[in-house]
Amino acid sequence: MSIAPLRIAIAGLGTVGAGVIRLLETNRDLIAARAGRPIEVTAVSARDRAKDRGVDISPFAWEDDMTALAARNDVDVVVELVGGADGPALALSRAALKGGKGLVTANKAMVAHHGLALAEAAEAAGVALKFEAAVAGGIPVVKGIREGTSANALTKVYGILNGTCNYILSEMEETGADFAETLIEAQKLGYAEADPSFDIDGIDAAHKLAILAAIGFGARIDFDAVRVNGIRQVRAADIAQADALGFVIRLIGEADVEEGEGGPCLLQRVRPCLVAKNHPLAPVDGPTNAVVAEGNFSGRLLFQGAGAGDGPTASAVVADLIDIARSEVSAPFSIPVARLAALPPAEPGHRTERTYIRFTVNDRPGVLAEITAAMRDADVSIESLIQHGRSREGGEVLVAMVTHEGPERCVTRALELLEGSDSLTDPPLVLPILS
Amino acid sequence: MSIAPLRIAIAGLGTVGAGVIRLLETNRDLIAARAGRPIEVTAVSARDRAKDRGVDISPFAWEDDMTALAARNDVDVVVELVGGADGPALALSRAALKGGKGLVTANKAMVAHHGLALAEAAEAAGVALKFEAAVAGGIPVVKGIREGTSANALTKVYGILNGTCNYILSEMEETGADFAETLIEAQKLGYAEADPSFDIDGIDAAHKLAILAAIGFGARIDFDAVRVNGIRQVRAADIAQADALGFVIRLIGEADVEEGEGGPCLLQRVRPCLVAKNHPLAPVDGPTNAVVAEGNFSGRLLFQGAGAGDGPTASAVVADLIDIARSEVSAPFSIPVARLAALPPAEPGHRTERTYIRFTVNDRPGVLAEITAAMRDADVSIESLIQHGRSREGGEVLVAMVTHEGPERCVTRALELLEGSDSLTDPPLVLPILS
Repeated sequence: MSIAPLRIAIAGLGTVGAGVIRLLETNRDLIAARAGRPIEVTAVSARDRAKDRGVDISPFAWEDDMTALAARNDVDVVVELVGGADGPALALSRAALKGGKGLVTANKAMVAHHGLALAEAAEAAGVALKFEAAVAGGIPVVKGIREGTSANALTKVYGILNGTCNYILSEMEETGADFAETLIEAQKLGYAEADPSFDIDGIDAAHKLAILAAIGFGARIDFDAVRVNGIRQVRAADIAQADALGFVIRLIGEADVEEGEGGPCLLQRVRPCLVAKNHPLAPVDGPTNAVVAEGNFSGRLLFQGAGAGDGPTASAVVADLIDIARSEVSAPFSIPVARLAALPPAEPGHRTERTYIRFTVNDRPGVLAEITAAMRDADVSIESLIQHGRSREGGEVLVAMVTHEGPERCVTRALELLEGSDSLTDPPLVLPILS
Repeated sequence: MSIAPLRIAIAGLGTVGAGVIRLLETNRDLIAARAGRPIEVTAVSARDRAKDRGVDISPFAWEDDMTALAARNDVDVVVELVGGADGPALALSRAALKGGKGLVTANKAMVAHHGLALAEAAEAAGVALKFEAAVAGGIPVVKGIREGTSANALTKVYGILNGTCNYILSEMEETGADFAETLIEAQKLGYAEADPSFDIDGIDAAHKLAILAAIGFGARIDFDAVRVNGIRQVRAADIAQADALGFVIRLIGEADVEEGEGGPCLLQRVRPCLVAKNHPLAPVDGPTNAVVAEGNFSGRLLFQGAGAGDGPTASAVVADLIDIARSEVSAPFSIPVARLAALPPAEPGHRTERTYIRFTVNDRPGVLAEITAAMRDADVSIESLIQHGRSREGGEVLVAMVTHEGPERCVTRALELLEGSDSLTDPPLVLPILS
């Protein structure tokens, strides 16, 4: 084959960067066959040149300043694996696109915050911007929604988008342990970072959801509009209670469009939900991710696989490179940025759902009456209520209830009525039941 | 937008053809936005022009002879929805590609039998040949494997590829009814055809598997090498027995490549299997399809959704059209036909698996001894054995066993030893346990 290779530069040589180099080496021949030409690394940049990464980087040119990769004339595509929404990753990405080079990135924070500006730059330069690895690791779900469901108006996109949270929740389910100790265990095993807040507070899932929502609904990315609840408040007792009711607890990101008074609005939220055990997302455990897209013709489609890890993430990065080598370069967000709709955030108060609510209360007379009165006054209809026996650590008792289907604003109102009550020892935990 | 529309002709106006017209009408604006230009039907052909299909075909030119669609100069892409491996569908497809038009087809039989010749014609003419709708209905699994896993050497592709069989098996599970009556019910509900043999004998699943195997393993399609067992022999008692052991029964198509003495060999087979209830394929019920692809970097990926129906199939057809409108036209089987490997069929006798074997025997002394002696003589190690009580219809009794993991050839040998025995009232049913 005498066709010119696709020449790439890699910025960032952590586990994913090393994984990309290893993948390109291991699967060299089949990649060249599928891409129609070889894909060759020409230059790399990282913080420490000498570090042992298990791969040989000596054949590649080295740049101390990663932005210099964008200026090299032996590079067609820059692969950005540095991370961080701003800073060097963004500077490099801008420089690469401006310089007429394609860009492949695994950086969900950067795409969620600056994806539209980068896509505009890519469209202006007529080059590719691809970010399959930014959402759900090795699962080709950006492609699945951008191209697989392209004939459909989507009614809903939702799924399990954060492997750390899913690992913690399914471990808690398995072991009966509480959140704090499971998190420590997850950190020991490498499933959670030393600073886990981006994951467990739902930010990482929100980044991914905002990207999928933009592609799925033809909307401008609006990360700030994502309503986010993390999983810190979920206790072992909640998981046990959910189990007894026929549910598991999963952190779910979901997005849909509703017709508001002034036109369509976009609802995006990330929150732990009760998921019925016969729902396709319920058996998704450990660090696995899964995304459901519901189209008006396709019906419900499920994409599932490894949500993180160097191998799966490298698989997604190189799939993007193969697409670029095949000259498959259309609008990064499926339709050109200029034609994406600016959808205002939807206000979900009128939406109806069943809800699990757990209170931690002082064990004294009248508490149940106080809670149930608030529910009554806010028009929340209780389907079932369980009061657990006194916990070992003092006078705290758990009261869990499941509501009948009703407007979300009624539950919000009930909790407002209870705000400041000295019967409650902690803020109540509200978990919607995924329908 | 002043860009020229992509002009298509549709051959075959059954439920899928009408579905494509309805989809293009319903989602017209978003399709134009995503495709970068409108997609317009210019001409159609079917058997009966007057038939009411619930869509208005009067705006389109009509051809009595569908092959004439390929000669029209107001057509860029022909959509073939006629069906049948040969005959008019093949004639039209050849004429379209030869005439420099793109071809989109939902015809799994034609692609399984003639896909390579058609792909060669498409490559020679520099036009698109796409067949997402031919495999697993609305699930973008051709794209998922061709593009989503393109960076990987696949270790295995397998899944539930026939909605009729999956509906029947999961209904039998649900109702406890036997195969024959469940088939009649499925026919009444439209889940099985009047002549169901293509589905229930596994041929349809084999067509789809052969297509996926070619794309996944870079191999020339070899439909004739698929080893096929259908589901006619599966009884209610087998499903009950599987359930008691922690399994469900699903018709599984699976393909992999093994290193033989003379080089790599391709194993393709379709057979009912016992699937552990915690396997991701076990909860796939009704007419749903699901495909698993295991890559050397991606790990296990699952694609799941509606395996048939006019909406999902139309969704896949139009997704192909949008790709073509976006000028995404690379090799139909991922790599050019000339570079696909001709892989000889693998001989699986040395492979090891656990197996469920059910015998129907005459209820008389010595039968169990005869069966267990054959197992011993063929080196099959029995993990568990259950003899059911006498059935109501005479002297027939079921004996079910699960073997320890062992070479397939030993089970084959054991059954050969029992061949012709007048203790057996029916050929034994052998169901591998999916690992």
